[in-house]
Amino acid sequence: MTVTLNDFLPSRKKIIEESLPNFIKYLEAPETLKESMLYSLNAGGKRLRPILVLATLQAYGKNEELGIAVGCAIEMLHTYSLIHDDLPCMDDDDLRRGKPTNHKVFGEALAVLAGDGLLTQCFSVIVNEKNPEVTAEMKIRLISEFVKAAGPEGMVGGQVLDMEAETKTLTLPELEYVHENKTAKLLMFSIIAGAILADASESDIQYLRTFAFHLGIAFQIRDDILDIEGNEELIGKRVGSDSSNEKTTYPSLLTMSGAKEKLAEHIAEAKSALRNVTADASLLEEICDLIASRDH
Amino acid sequence: MTVTLNDFLPSRKKIIEESLPNFIKYLEAPETLKESMLYSLNAGGKRLRPILVLATLQAYGKNEELGIAVGCAIEMLHTYSLIHDDLPCMDDDDLRRGKPTNHKVFGEALAVLAGDGLLTQCFSVIVNEKNPEVTAEMKIRLISEFVKAAGPEGMVGGQVLDMEAETKTLTLPELEYVHENKTAKLLMFSIIAGAILADASESDIQYLRTFAFHLGIAFQIRDDILDIEGNEELIGKRVGSDSSNEKTTYPSLLTMSGAKEKLAEHIAEAKSALRNVTADASLLEEICDLIASRDH
Repeated sequence: MTVTLNDFLPSRKKIIEESLPNFIKYLEAPETLKESMLYSLNAGGKRLRPILVLATLQAYGKNEELGIAVGCAIEMLHTYSLIHDDLPCMDDDDLRRGKPTNHKVFGEALAVLAGDGLLTQCFSVIVNEKNPEVTAEMKIRLISEFVKAAGPEGMVGGQVLDMEAETKTLTLPELEYVHENKTAKLLMFSIIAGAILADASESDIQYLRTFAFHLGIAFQIRDDILDIEGNEELIGKRVGSDSSNEKTTYPSLLTMSGAKEKLAEHIAEAKSALRNVTADASLLEEICDLIASRDH
Repeated sequence: MTVTLNDFLPSRKKIIEESLPNFIKYLEAPETLKESMLYSLNAGGKRLRPILVLATLQAYGKNEELGIAVGCAIEMLHTYSLIHDDLPCMDDDDLRRGKPTNHKVFGEALAVLAGDGLLTQCFSVIVNEKNPEVTAEMKIRLISEFVKAAGPEGMVGGQVLDMEAETKTLTLPELEYVHENKTAKLLMFSIIAGAILADASESDIQYLRTFAFHLGIAFQIRDDILDIEGNEELIGKRVGSDSSNEKTTYPSLLTMSGAKEKLAEHIAEAKSALRNVTADASLLEEICDLIASRDH
């Protein structure tokens, strides 16, 4: 049975959004802490990362339920990173997805702790998956890859590079390295996680890694373009913030048409890698096109 | 062969302090981030938590090397919690163990990220232990217990309770609940982790949990006492900070002699639980006495 992307995206977003609070609300933890974690978890977003886990399982014809916990763990980790990024000592943002940021509502101290809480708890979500098809060995590998993607060798490292880049103009390879770490690696992990859960071959995992790398960089280039050409209401934040911060972006380095060309190149590379995968990757390919053309 | 505590503590502290940097310095991560993480990891301390892991393995006559990685993971997590606790929006401390706090040296943004990096990386340290005696099932259980001890249901939750307690006087059960979460659960996990690695029986693990709970509360009571009676040079921070912050402490609730009595009660309960454990727990018992009488 063929699933169309128009059905897949809203239905899986709904499943993830219904599942996410269940990993928090039954915890024996202070109510204010749970409230603060749930506030940011429930603040919306595309839920792209968990959707990529499920889409990869779907490509292998596997039960998507295998990926719900890991998908939610990735979304919890993504949410912690947004809470900490928005802090006054970091990007100092008051709004996120059109809503007041966590520290604006709960104060800085609780925002730091809500982030710490989400970051810690997401590892429990992975190891406590009860489905026997998710073996102990899979969980170990998932956590090892997750830390590589999210920790000092991935997202946290990318965030440091991004901060250090604020005071200088980057070259294209430097800019790409920042975004590989800050953004692409967690998107890559989402797809790798789906492949691990689907028990995909090592060769497939390698091709999916290449696919996901180009998808992740394309995602970031589109973000930079939207910061200039985007509609504020659709993207939920002010446009033009990159150029007013004098940040190096793909359009600032390559001009707008050069950035769009680079975006098309990464999408082409992504699709080329995907063609080597021994699964029905049509949905992943459609997601790829969507990321290239998204308006928010 | 009998090991005396006088040999055990400094020799195991040395092993842990030699091992800790190895989990950071080879990471492919920005140098400034690694520097910031290593600064706090290398800032000294008693290394009590990893020592408890090794002492528990020793009680079962097991190879203590099994516990080095997990011990270091716990110390990394403990270190992240100190970095975040010291932030201006939290306790706003300039000194820790007689040295400038992380954000004083590296700035607030990098301190937040160094904490996030240590917290994320410590889970990798556990799953990437290569010794085949540490099975995948043990790793899964270690991570599940670790998150319970360190996350919203443990230390992070305790930190929130502690913040909320600043504006009111707590009852004794409330105070104990704060310290159970904020301090005792991570000490408890250190001992449970040693027991899991030693493949101890479930009954032993239960007795060790009780032992470690009382040990953890005793540790905190001694901390409160040292904040009044301690020597600033030995403890590396100013004394009297609790009473100037009008914090509820064991001495403020029970008087100094009442606090000392409560400390003795918890030490007695700890030892009583320990007597049921089917291992040579003499070293753990000595550590218990040391915690009751420590001067820093």
